[in-house]
Amino acid sequence: MGRQVRESLRRAVGEKAFFDSEADRFLYSYDTSSRKVLPDAVVRAENAEQIAALMAVATRHGIPVTPRGGGSGTTGGSVPVDGGVVLVMSGMNRILSVDMDNLVARAEPGVITGDFHRAVEAKGLFYPPDPASSAFCTLGGNLAECAGGPRAVKYGVTRDYVLGLEAVLPTGELIRTGVQTAKGVVGYDLTRLIVGSEGTLAVITSMNLKLLPLPESVKTLTVVFDEMARAAETVSEIIRRGLIPRTIEYMDQAAIVCAETRMPGELPVDAGAMLIIEVDGRKAEAIAMAEDVALLCQSMGAREVKVAASEDEAARLWAARKAISPALFRYGPHKINEDIVVPRSKIPDVVEKIRELKEKTRLMMVSFGHAGDGNIHFNIMLDKKDASALRRAHWAVEELFRFTLALGGTLSGEHGVGLSKQAYFDMEIGPEEKALMLRLKKAFDPAGILNPHKIF
Amino acid sequence: MGRQVRESLRRAVGEKAFFDSEADRFLYSYDTSSRKVLPDAVVRAENAEQIAALMAVATRHGIPVTPRGGGSGTTGGSVPVDGGVVLVMSGMNRILSVDMDNLVARAEPGVITGDFHRAVEAKGLFYPPDPASSAFCTLGGNLAECAGGPRAVKYGVTRDYVLGLEAVLPTGELIRTGVQTAKGVVGYDLTRLIVGSEGTLAVITSMNLKLLPLPESVKTLTVVFDEMARAAETVSEIIRRGLIPRTIEYMDQAAIVCAETRMPGELPVDAGAMLIIEVDGRKAEAIAMAEDVALLCQSMGAREVKVAASEDEAARLWAARKAISPALFRYGPHKINEDIVVPRSKIPDVVEKIRELKEKTRLMMVSFGHAGDGNIHFNIMLDKKDASALRRAHWAVEELFRFTLALGGTLSGEHGVGLSKQAYFDMEIGPEEKALMLRLKKAFDPAGILNPHKIF
Ligand SMILES: Cc1cc2nc3c(=O)[nH]c(=O)nc-3n(C[C@H](O)[C@H](O)[C@H](O)COP(=O)(O)OP(=O)(O)OC[C@H]3O[C@@H](n4cnc5c(N)ncnc54)[C@H](O)[C@@H]3O)c2cc1C
Ligand SMILES: Cc1cc2nc3c(=O)[nH]c(=O)nc-3n(C[C@H](O)[C@H](O)[C@H](O)COP(=O)(O)OP(=O)(O)OC[C@H]3O[C@@H](n4cnc5c(N)ncnc54)[C@H](O)[C@@H]3O)c2cc1C
Repeated sequence: MGRQVRESLRRAVGEKAFFDSEADRFLYSYDTSSRKVLPDAVVRAENAEQIAALMAVATRHGIPVTPRGGGSGTTGGSVPVDGGVVLVMSGMNRILSVDMDNLVARAEPGVITGDFHRAVEAKGLFYPPDPASSAFCTLGGNLAECAGGPRAVKYGVTRDYVLGLEAVLPTGELIRTGVQTAKGVVGYDLTRLIVGSEGTLAVITSMNLKLLPLPESVKTLTVVFDEMARAAETVSEIIRRGLIPRTIEYMDQAAIVCAETRMPGELPVDAGAMLIIEVDGRKAEAIAMAEDVALLCQSMGAREVKVAASEDEAARLWAARKAISPALFRYGPHKINEDIVVPRSKIPDVVEKIRELKEKTRLMMVSFGHAGDGNIHFNIMLDKKDASALRRAHWAVEELFRFTLALGGTLSGEHGVGLSKQAYFDMEIGPEEKALMLRLKKAFDPAGILNPHKIF
Repeated sequence: MGRQVRESLRRAVGEKAFFDSEADRFLYSYDTSSRKVLPDAVVRAENAEQIAALMAVATRHGIPVTPRGGGSGTTGGSVPVDGGVVLVMSGMNRILSVDMDNLVARAEPGVITGDFHRAVEAKGLFYPPDPASSAFCTLGGNLAECAGGPRAVKYGVTRDYVLGLEAVLPTGELIRTGVQTAKGVVGYDLTRLIVGSEGTLAVITSMNLKLLPLPESVKTLTVVFDEMARAAETVSEIIRRGLIPRTIEYMDQAAIVCAETRMPGELPVDAGAMLIIEVDGRKAEAIAMAEDVALLCQSMGAREVKVAASEDEAARLWAARKAISPALFRYGPHKINEDIVVPRSKIPDVVEKIRELKEKTRLMMVSFGHAGDGNIHFNIMLDKKDASALRRAHWAVEELFRFTLALGGTLSGEHGVGLSKQAYFDMEIGPEEKALMLRLKKAFDPAGILNPHKIF
């Protein structure tokens, strides 16, 4: 980046927001994927006007800009592969309003998801999307990835809670999309096109989010199985019976061992699999549903079914669930992680496939995730310096992807394509569809400067 | 349309699918808006390949193609204003699969919405979107308009139930979008961009729809008020209390009179307003919630609260509700109808505004609709040959639109822009947003032949 361009950018955003020390650049060079690329500069966004000014200059000079929320993305979405500017959104973190009469909130994108949960819950309201990273990811990142989370089984994903946006186009125009009402159909649905676009179409600067009343009661069950296959069949059976808990998480044995680090002695480390099932609603309804689910699990051969005795016990269980991902590194220095989705009745097939891949590759594989959606987080832990292991791992991933697509599944339920899944994109998306997406990208970003080289 | 082009079109779709008699052209020249324009020809679609062939020819020769479902649209969406071909989708009406294990159905776009409801309900499943036109509208039309309906209060709109599509681009390519699983985020969200695009971006040829388990129990309440204002305040209060019934419909006095034609002597034609509130869930939950709602309504000053004694009574009530729209013509030969949405707490303000407009214009106004969403169907009944009445009506509509937008509302909750609301589009959508939408249109439809002159 030349001196003149750098000065134009600095002038556009203001001295206080512009950083280009080695340390700052390093700090924003990576997310939780394995990629790391230094940007030329970092801008800490304070408001939409400033971002508009930045984007106008960036388009004029062809400077890449990569938005960044909490940096918790797993597919390299916020990694500035092409250099240029990392646009850090975490400072724009005000909750602008929580309208209890209309069940709508307005927030800036840098709000930490967990902070937002607490703020609305304090008013008796409920924002269902709950990525397991909620303690450190941002609403903006959630929108950009269309984040899911355990509660998606009953409540859907981020997309289902976004009513409207304020966003800056790559060319610098500030736009408003969607509505602040319960419904609205005037014009094309720019809102949901931007949601899930992985920060490649526009920079989200504020959002109108739909809220629900906070459920009166939640019951949290742990269900233990000797065999993973049995647990998988139970998940399918729950859905087949028309019971829709808000959550059906599962962990295989290796994942239970990781979770147990947070609840020493309390989790069944010898079990083949464990489910965490949560039901909610009015008190009587939650109790009745918990009973139905418990009976069904027992009849499916669960070795143990336990309802958490208190909110505190449930909270500890969730903390343990959230600890799995970081704790995986006990199994190897590097992680390859995927989040395939299959039709829910096909989970047993995937479980069997993973068993087979494990046997064939002799690699350490751990799987857990949002089984109620058919969304399986599949991890291979390895030392990437071991070329043979790496080769076998890539083979296994491709095998699993092929299998997933053949079952009618998709390569990503919530983590997005980013950099990590680019090589596999064409397995799922056909050439006509891809060409159309690239035309849409062009319609938003003629100079191709917003988060370039992602997805495609 | 020249002879040669006509023959190219005929060859592309096959002799059996091509019609150009006066009678056929007349039959497909209008919807329920007041516009009527004869197409040059009619194609009755049988499959996606045929549509692909048609679109390729149409793009090559610059022939407008207007998709048409049931023709129940209220904004002229299926009216071929530019002539060309009306593409009738109603013959592609097979339900391709209902997957009870995964709660997903696949259907062709010509399926009548009500038929689809019955088919999935017979399997214990539930497709919530229920436009009041469900006896004659199609799923394809519902997707194109992002239809709502009474149950949207709790269950959301059509968009929330579309997982993936098969569609033909204006240039003739057959594309697949989205997924057949509960989640999926690979690539841009073409699915939701096509949903709500009013048949201007692509012709939908099949769809994957999300289903829910059929609720165990439904309770239907009628709540009668002496004054409309009181009813409006009650709607806001229900939401404010965090009670989310599946339905909160309202009718003003003039609408009750229309509904009463279907239930002579059974509806309170002297009342200021009536609400139809429906709650659902497990049996105990539905009963408890019905009680809560009933108590709240009484405390808000309802003159009568009644729970329907049987499914049959509830069904008759809904038939009466659905009869309002056609029965309106007792008040005048022509109808101007709008479906504004406001934040739910602002319904009382809108009711007051309508009262004021009625007084000022001395026109017959009837309002009813999906109050639980803040979605108000506002109708002016008049004789359009009366120039003064027409002028006053247009003034009232513009006044109401301005008021709606000032309250944070939107000009359409479910009917779309089509032709009828084009003149007002710029009141809600800014120039940058509109320019972006037009670029998206171009990315799908470079020749501008798919349903031209709609929305914008
Ligand atoms: C331990 C762990 C658990 C996780 N669990 C889940 C889970 O349960 N469900 C789930 O869905 N994900 C999960 N994730 C993935 C990740 O947390 C989500 O993708 C999250 O939405 C990313 O948010 P972020 O703020 O960290 O975004 P970042 O990682 O900073 O960025 C992600 C993408 O969003 C873009 N972006 C960020 N802000 C904006 C903005 N304002 N405007 C436009 N684009 C923007 C970036 O350019 C990038 O492409 C998990 C990750 C970890 C590490
Ligand atoms: C009495 C009455 C009550 C109504 N109640 C409601 C209600 O409660 N909620 C609500 O939302 N609407 C309601 N409507 C409006 C209307 O029924 C809906 O908009 C419905 O979705 C239209 O469906 P259709 O099949 O009749 O479509 P049409 O009127 O034939 O077409 C509507 C639009 O869809 C496009 N289209 C149709 N099929 C396709 C396809 N396969 N691919 C691409 N584009 C296509 C057309 O080009 C057109 O732009 C009501 C209408 C009436 C007359």
